[in-house]
Amino acid sequence: MLLDETTLPYYARGAAILGAGGGGSTRSGLLAALQAVQELGPVEVVSLDDVPDDALILPTAGLGSPDITLEKIGNPQQGVWLRDAMERELGRPAYAWMAAEVGGNNALKPVVWAAHTGLPLVDADGMGRAYPEVQMISMHLHGVPATPTVLVDERGHHVVFRDMDAQWLERTARALSVAFGGFSVTVDHSLDGATARTATVRGSVSRAVRIGEILSDTSLGDTVDRLAPLGGHVLVTGKIAEVNRRTVGGFARGNVLVDGVAGDRDRLVRVEIQNENLAVLEEGEVLASVPDVITALDSQTGEVIFTEELRYGQRVTLVALPAPDMWRTEAGLALVGPRAFDYDFDYIPVEELVARRKESVS
Amino acid sequence: MLLDETTLPYYARGAAILGAGGGGSTRSGLLAALQAVQELGPVEVVSLDDVPDDALILPTAGLGSPDITLEKIGNPQQGVWLRDAMERELGRPAYAWMAAEVGGNNALKPVVWAAHTGLPLVDADGMGRAYPEVQMISMHLHGVPATPTVLVDERGHHVVFRDMDAQWLERTARALSVAFGGFSVTVDHSLDGATARTATVRGSVSRAVRIGEILSDTSLGDTVDRLAPLGGHVLVTGKIAEVNRRTVGGFARGNVLVDGVAGDRDRLVRVEIQNENLAVLEEGEVLASVPDVITALDSQTGEVIFTEELRYGQRVTLVALPAPDMWRTEAGLALVGPRAFDYDFDYIPVEELVARRKESVS
Repeated sequence: MLLDETTLPYYARGAAILGAGGGGSTRSGLLAALQAVQELGPVEVVSLDDVPDDALILPTAGLGSPDITLEKIGNPQQGVWLRDAMERELGRPAYAWMAAEVGGNNALKPVVWAAHTGLPLVDADGMGRAYPEVQMISMHLHGVPATPTVLVDERGHHVVFRDMDAQWLERTARALSVAFGGFSVTVDHSLDGATARTATVRGSVSRAVRIGEILSDTSLGDTVDRLAPLGGHVLVTGKIAEVNRRTVGGFARGNVLVDGVAGDRDRLVRVEIQNENLAVLEEGEVLASVPDVITALDSQTGEVIFTEELRYGQRVTLVALPAPDMWRTEAGLALVGPRAFDYDFDYIPVEELVARRKESVS
Repeated sequence: MLLDETTLPYYARGAAILGAGGGGSTRSGLLAALQAVQELGPVEVVSLDDVPDDALILPTAGLGSPDITLEKIGNPQQGVWLRDAMERELGRPAYAWMAAEVGGNNALKPVVWAAHTGLPLVDADGMGRAYPEVQMISMHLHGVPATPTVLVDERGHHVVFRDMDAQWLERTARALSVAFGGFSVTVDHSLDGATARTATVRGSVSRAVRIGEILSDTSLGDTVDRLAPLGGHVLVTGKIAEVNRRTVGGFARGNVLVDGVAGDRDRLVRVEIQNENLAVLEEGEVLASVPDVITALDSQTGEVIFTEELRYGQRVTLVALPAPDMWRTEAGLALVGPRAFDYDFDYIPVEELVARRKESVS
């Protein structure tokens, strides 16, 4: 498969849904990726089946608060700097890039890096969605070391981290991102082809493209209708009544109140945010939570509204999609379930929560 | 010259005075250095005249707030980690250690590193005293690049900084030190023998030993008498009336009020602190300021009281010694003069300030 001017918009649309409101807006990321493939040619997406066992794969993502990326758009050379530094660190050539998370702009950055380095992108990622913290990644779940890690800012400053576990990396690399102005890009949890076949969420890139194609097929009804075959559930339709969002400790944190409209009149729903949408609550009841994918759509256009774009008065439809199976296991939930974000409730799959609500209404 | 069980106590005493209240208390540093030379043999101090032109010198210091070091005493292996990482980074063997600053515990850490790595210490440093920030160093004044820099914590976590100037390094490495728990150790501004002969404060280690010997010679009168031939001036003798000191942004910051006693009765003097003692003020008048060396002595014992040890009720004698000539130049003052610390006054040498006060009194 190729990512080019035709497929990239689908990929970006799928990545937007999978971002759970995070990973950074795909708007500027899509523009940067389109420009890169126009200038340098399409990016090849390779199946992990075709990657040699010992080939070096570089998972990459931004680190910081997506709010910052509205003004700080990065530098296309960052991919070259990251690749060169990782090759120097490991003493062997890189084979391919991987999106650390297939959600939001973090799905598109590796496309820019790939175009600028002439390397392909593997059809996989580390989350099957987006999560806010470094250790919330499939490679961590499978024992792949977090370091060596390379971090660069947009000016060309380089930092290499060694001999650190994922939690220490999260703590220290996040602090460094704040010192660099709130955002930087990294390669961490690098791995070889053989390991990647078990330690990643496979098929993520082609899945995102497919989701984008389905969402763009107007013959399938409106956006909500198109999401249904993907397992999508509508949580509420309403108007944003309040946005509490601050950039704190290298994250966008806060919550959003949605006032129900039409059939949802008299409902008041709260979305909890840490870069991504973490949970939706109504009168103390959980409507959906991590690891399921919670996304706010513009009720008129069906476009994803990223957390950094939420504003008072927007008409929104909150939808939830089931998490990849990996995150619904005991080990997965320990890493990315509600309690990993300090919420005092257990995870219940969104489809079960929806069925319960229907029962109680009828 | 050798640093051994005989000379180390003198060296520590000189380093304490030159620390300007900062660089960390020499008490625990002296114990660590004594233990290292007892276990591993004395450390050789080599003149820069005897260092080959292309020999690699590693300047080292702690980075963080000295308050933290009261509880976080470090790990003797840190020197081995720093040396190994710098050798890997530069692809050549290290020849010797250098104290980035000859003041406080930072004068003694390199002795521990030297003993544990079997390398000598050069008779020089980067300040001729102690300063709080990374760029406040003679190598920066002489155009030596700040990076590559290696930073390690006491657990063995490694971070390498590349392609950064001294101000960016100060900002980002400081943030990282805070994330590591408030203190870490670094090698930065590494240089070769030829460069060191012009870009350092030469003879610092032997000077500190000599100062320690003079201060320990009871035949020369009390501590104040012994400081006089070194250019020392007494600013005030009093009792600490108030200590405002917080650990903020990776520094110990605050001020201390000293209430005059005996001949200084009815005087109230304020000491401004950022790790080191920066300035002494009395009713809006400057008594002494950076780059001159301001040190608080215990009025009874003559021992240095480091900023992290200042407490209400202590009897103190504030003394000031002239700064090394390098810092009294225009370029030197731009880097470490009062305005570099955001004070709105120009530097006047302490001996001139003392002469003016004597005149106005008589």
